[in-house]
Amino acid sequence: MERLEDPPDVVIRRLPLYARSLRYLLDEEIHSVSSQELGERINVTAAQIRKDLSYFGEFGKQGIGYDVEKLLNHIERILGLDQSWPVILVGVGHLGQAIARYDGFHSQGLRIVGIFETDQHKIGQKIAHIEITDYALMPKVIRDTDVRLGIIAVPAAEAQSVADMLIDSGIRAILCYAPIILQTPDDVWVRYIDPVAVLHSMTYYLARENMP
Amino acid sequence: MERLEDPPDVVIRRLPLYARSLRYLLDEEIHSVSSQELGERINVTAAQIRKDLSYFGEFGKQGIGYDVEKLLNHIERILGLDQSWPVILVGVGHLGQAIARYDGFHSQGLRIVGIFETDQHKIGQKIAHIEITDYALMPKVIRDTDVRLGIIAVPAAEAQSVADMLIDSGIRAILCYAPIILQTPDDVWVRYIDPVAVLHSMTYYLARENMP
Repeated sequence: MERLEDPPDVVIRRLPLYARSLRYLLDEEIHSVSSQELGERINVTAAQIRKDLSYFGEFGKQGIGYDVEKLLNHIERILGLDQSWPVILVGVGHLGQAIARYDGFHSQGLRIVGIFETDQHKIGQKIAHIEITDYALMPKVIRDTDVRLGIIAVPAAEAQSVADMLIDSGIRAILCYAPIILQTPDDVWVRYIDPVAVLHSMTYYLARENMP
Repeated sequence: MERLEDPPDVVIRRLPLYARSLRYLLDEEIHSVSSQELGERINVTAAQIRKDLSYFGEFGKQGIGYDVEKLLNHIERILGLDQSWPVILVGVGHLGQAIARYDGFHSQGLRIVGIFETDQHKIGQKIAHIEITDYALMPKVIRDTDVRLGIIAVPAAEAQSVADMLIDSGIRAILCYAPIILQTPDDVWVRYIDPVAVLHSMTYYLARENMP
């Protein structure tokens, strides 16, 4: 088979949005969609969608559009979502608790299989049926369960040492909620959830509206 | 004054990360930094930093680097952070409560001034010293206080109607935690916090590692 060019990361980041939008279409019992219609739903141009998908093969037919279910299945397979992914969570402050209780993970192929915390008062309690485990036991659990995705929900001052321990224990991809840029090896994926930075990227535009 | 070219949005999104990194440098009492050093901290090339900053004027000197405090002040001014921004929050489920309690907003020029909810059992209670207010009163509060930033932390099924009401009442920028793409007018800024999509963009790479 001819090997296609590797897609840039920005394309990979858009695929989950395509998948989500296609899922909504299926819920609405819409079984066929043009790149134009799909684009309008996610604020991406039709040309961008066609270009993004072209990295992964041939989809849709000129004038007919995409078969929603087929395209969704294909994108889910590309994203590795034909399997379920175990995830561990470190930190159960207010944010960690909200993450642990969020039912959107489970329905989307992501299972939280371990919750770790240093606070002895919280260890042993349960959140969403999962027992909070002593952080000291985390390396062993990661090795025993072969989990490779980790979520960091600890304060910024502790995030780097948590990341180090996650990576040492075998975690290969980290979602970090702490407002810090982690120093990590090149073969580990790190993404950030950073509401303050996102809000600041909008205050830029709002501040401009006030200018003469 | 010569008018500089408008910076692309991707540059605006990086500015808050530059600002944060500069703040950390100041905390460490580092007062001068090269684009190389700054870049290493945020995983951006030195050339990218120089190019990004060039949209806003002349900073730093060849061989001397940037004055950390001056550059920080300048970026904060660019982002509109020489003023404090009122923000309202809609929804106080687990996530909304974690957002309301997050102390990272206040220290970064963002003040939550109103929390709104439809659940009559929660209305009147306080989170982080702010009283939860009846959602029906939201339009009046937005108009009276001239707040223009809103955070949506309601379930996906309610997010669009909340966004519509926010925008009708005068909100100009929305941070949406619901897993949905909002339909909004062109003159309203919308950004998303979407941990599932972000995790899915990493399962793509992890799934590839297993391939023969």
